[in-house]
Amino acid sequence: MIIINHARSTVERVGSTVDLATLNRLLAKPHLPPLGLHFAASRRALGISWRQQRPFRLPLLAPGLSVRSSSTGTEIHVDNSKNRVPEGAITPRSQDFNAWYLDIIANAELADYGPVRGTMVIRPYGYAIWEAIQEYLNVKFKETGHENMYFPQFIPYSFIEKEASHVEGFSPELALVTIGGGKELEEKLVVRPTSETIVNHMFTQWIHSHRDLPLMINQWANVTRWEMRTKPFVRTLEFLWQEGHTAHASPEEAEKEAIQMIDIYTKFAYEQAAIPVIAGRKSKVETFAGADKTYTIEAMMGDRKALQAGTSHNLGQNFSRAFGTQFTDENGQRQHVWQTSWAISTRFVGGIIMTHGDDGGLMLPPRLAPIQVVIVPIWKKEGVKAEVLNAAASVEVNLRTAGIKVKLDDSEQRTPGWKFNFWEMKGVPLRIEIGPKDVANQSVVISRRDIPGKQGKVFGISMEPSILEAYVKDTLDEIQSSLLEQAKTFRDSNVVDVSSYNELKEAISQGKWARGPWSASDKDELKVKEETGATIRCFPFEQPQGPKTCLMTGNAAEEVAIFAKSY
Amino acid sequence: MIIINHARSTVERVGSTVDLATLNRLLAKPHLPPLGLHFAASRRALGISWRQQRPFRLPLLAPGLSVRSSSTGTEIHVDNSKNRVPEGAITPRSQDFNAWYLDIIANAELADYGPVRGTMVIRPYGYAIWEAIQEYLNVKFKETGHENMYFPQFIPYSFIEKEASHVEGFSPELALVTIGGGKELEEKLVVRPTSETIVNHMFTQWIHSHRDLPLMINQWANVTRWEMRTKPFVRTLEFLWQEGHTAHASPEEAEKEAIQMIDIYTKFAYEQAAIPVIAGRKSKVETFAGADKTYTIEAMMGDRKALQAGTSHNLGQNFSRAFGTQFTDENGQRQHVWQTSWAISTRFVGGIIMTHGDDGGLMLPPRLAPIQVVIVPIWKKEGVKAEVLNAAASVEVNLRTAGIKVKLDDSEQRTPGWKFNFWEMKGVPLRIEIGPKDVANQSVVISRRDIPGKQGKVFGISMEPSILEAYVKDTLDEIQSSLLEQAKTFRDSNVVDVSSYNELKEAISQGKWARGPWSASDKDELKVKEETGATIRCFPFEQPQGPKTCLMTGNAAEEVAIFAKSY
Repeated sequence: MIIINHARSTVERVGSTVDLATLNRLLAKPHLPPLGLHFAASRRALGISWRQQRPFRLPLLAPGLSVRSSSTGTEIHVDNSKNRVPEGAITPRSQDFNAWYLDIIANAELADYGPVRGTMVIRPYGYAIWEAIQEYLNVKFKETGHENMYFPQFIPYSFIEKEASHVEGFSPELALVTIGGGKELEEKLVVRPTSETIVNHMFTQWIHSHRDLPLMINQWANVTRWEMRTKPFVRTLEFLWQEGHTAHASPEEAEKEAIQMIDIYTKFAYEQAAIPVIAGRKSKVETFAGADKTYTIEAMMGDRKALQAGTSHNLGQNFSRAFGTQFTDENGQRQHVWQTSWAISTRFVGGIIMTHGDDGGLMLPPRLAPIQVVIVPIWKKEGVKAEVLNAAASVEVNLRTAGIKVKLDDSEQRTPGWKFNFWEMKGVPLRIEIGPKDVANQSVVISRRDIPGKQGKVFGISMEPSILEAYVKDTLDEIQSSLLEQAKTFRDSNVVDVSSYNELKEAISQGKWARGPWSASDKDELKVKEETGATIRCFPFEQPQGPKTCLMTGNAAEEVAIFAKSY
Repeated sequence: MIIINHARSTVERVGSTVDLATLNRLLAKPHLPPLGLHFAASRRALGISWRQQRPFRLPLLAPGLSVRSSSTGTEIHVDNSKNRVPEGAITPRSQDFNAWYLDIIANAELADYGPVRGTMVIRPYGYAIWEAIQEYLNVKFKETGHENMYFPQFIPYSFIEKEASHVEGFSPELALVTIGGGKELEEKLVVRPTSETIVNHMFTQWIHSHRDLPLMINQWANVTRWEMRTKPFVRTLEFLWQEGHTAHASPEEAEKEAIQMIDIYTKFAYEQAAIPVIAGRKSKVETFAGADKTYTIEAMMGDRKALQAGTSHNLGQNFSRAFGTQFTDENGQRQHVWQTSWAISTRFVGGIIMTHGDDGGLMLPPRLAPIQVVIVPIWKKEGVKAEVLNAAASVEVNLRTAGIKVKLDDSEQRTPGWKFNFWEMKGVPLRIEIGPKDVANQSVVISRRDIPGKQGKVFGISMEPSILEAYVKDTLDEIQSSLLEQAKTFRDSNVVDVSSYNELKEAISQGKWARGPWSASDKDELKVKEETGATIRCFPFEQPQGPKTCLMTGNAAEEVAIFAKSY
């Protein structure tokens, strides 16, 4: 389950060894900044854009062509007089991050507000990002032996009450059906906020012997939590997610599964979403209501607030004891199963927006972008229109055949300049421009979304299908890597190592994340929250070597924790 | 929307021309029996199985092999002493169709009952059938220009009241949320029974000009209808479906879309599910609450009751007038949009079970089967176990690589005979048996689920990957066609042409479908329902030529209607 920013306390039970080797194997250098690197001023703060520092790549040239000033470039210049920002301009990100976020969601048509307070309509462009997330994860879940299924969303109220900390965590957020078919119901029905209770009710009927284990399932579903402060994607009254639920014959297996799933989420975040999350274990205070341990991936948004982007829980025997989910082991003994649950939701779409966007709007990682390449044909004279459109259509077909998600914007209502702005705002990673001279030269102009202006523009790329396809695929890969690198650099320059509570407060007051050794009490943790607004995001899996001293108490500490303000 | 067997009356508005040419183009000979063919006794009734009449195909032989009596056959015989039907035997279909249906659902682990009355847990094997349906339809929807998105499931109660016939149709079935976050809500929220109202609320905000049209979307979602008599898959309190919603600038476009979508459903039913549905138009009495016209596909189940398996509605301007969904046309005039909606649900899974199953259990059409081929390794002596298992594993890998959904059942708890029964009961289309002599001969034995016993068994098929792959694929295609042919034959022998009310009553009392000319009143239609239990399933698109006389009134009739009892 994703805990939507609420601390739901529960009793911590057993300790565990985190499978660091596995994690490191999975990730391509997802390292935290070296410990001891204090407050490295962000390049952004110094006014140096990463983009300005990026080396420039030589294009694959069309036969017989040298790099040239583009015909289309000229035409664009002419068109500039007619250019205008699409309706409803985006508030600059630096000026007001929240307004920028909401502007992007509205202008890029990612989502809209539903008629009921706190609900969200996910529009096709936003939903397509969710579909890309689903496609990837669904395969990974099946590869690791999970099967999809579907549980009813109506849960008898009495079920929620069976697990003590679970009911404490979720009671304030429930939506209740009290009338069905025109009649008052005898028992109120909870619209699922998460499904552990109903899952266990069913597992109890299906699990008899150790041969029925492990039982590993997943469902893609909607869930409802009556949140008071809502924000599109990040926190909505109803949201979409997947929730995995597994039952095992031993605590070790359950722990291995919980770690496996947070590893899959971590790999997904790095490789698909280009979000360099920090994976780790939640503090007792922040553990899921009903879990022994919660693992999390924490992402740093553009405003440096943390977003909990996915969680995996080792539920121990809490639900199996509450619901009597038992099996007969190999020795004929009855035992309660050990369980896990894990989830990623449409909240992740919000994380993508807030990680990669800029003043121009959305910037989508190519692997999750609904449109990877937009083609803008450019002509002024009617006489050349047909040949330009033909060439553009042919490029479209070639790229689509090569498996690239491509859109040809050949509408005549808008100028090319308007289209450039529009598709940049929509975050499309690559733009291909084709004008009459390009057609004559059998080449195209390619612009990268992540490198604005002339620096991101390459002229004279051959239209020859195999050359263009290879160039586009390489460049998309480069953009994918580049977005991850930029986000890593940003993250690393905003995580500060602290060794005292004063340093922690200083870092938090500067909007940064503070990382320091922690072995203090739950009460101290809550004090930090009250005084600074920051919470422990996680004890990261990647820990520094050597002895540590708790930043709060001065006692010995086993681990560093990361503190940050969060969504 | 799928009307779950409730007549929801509404006012019929305009007539229409059905695009028969399109339909015929789409379908490979989905013809109704020739008119005038009265009560052709079913072969089943005569005790002649279709299977006995099927020609037998020569197998592709392994090099150097002739058809032989199988080693595995012998071993199976030996194993027969230990064979037993899997726990919870299936009630014979002929004995009690409903008990048979419920037994299959339980034994094949397709679904289970949820804790709330009328709800259903869709188990992995049942959900995988739904996933196969989704995969196919999702592609078709996108190919025809629809985009997926997601609307909230909570709808303000006042929305439902806006369209007069809609509220009349759905009010008795609503689930209402009255408490959220611990507080009584000011306005009750409806848990969506269908989404026309909330869709129109949003469309009104998104549609301004004719350039915003057509707007064509789809969502995969859960819906809730407080049904009193429920049955797994066929009618449940909550079910899964897709609901398409479109808005158009003209009534012709909307009509074309409504027809296009019922065509897609028809093609899907024939080609993927091997269900020879009859497509047509609903009577006014049976039209969706809020639609001008409802198109339907009607499937004949094994007990000869009709199942409404998918519907497509031309909504006209009913919802756009209720919600003020207007656009400015090319002449600057404000007009209300013309709309459609269309749906297929998890009910379709019930249709597949009840079309193709037999006394042995489920029988799945290969194109929708979660497991197309099961491999059962057979050995008695420990000494040969390894080589048999290795060969089986190798065949598994080869078939999987070829894109075939294959399962190797190498468990040692069960005898081969038990496995044969089990996977037959689960409806797996093909079984591959591999014993020690097969390994020696580098061949396998293949059994078809749809041809029981020795007649469906072919020996000596080469293990050589390309030969085996081709053989398996061909045979799966053959089974797919064969299931459709069998279902067509069954359907055609159970549709009776009638020319009087007495003939209609006679046909219905024999459990058949009655087809006859109809131009009588709604009142007459309801009288038929009261007196016979049958309703007009549809006016089929495929109509006989020539003058017609209403079976009830003796007046001239334009069309024949099909009457049947239904789910």
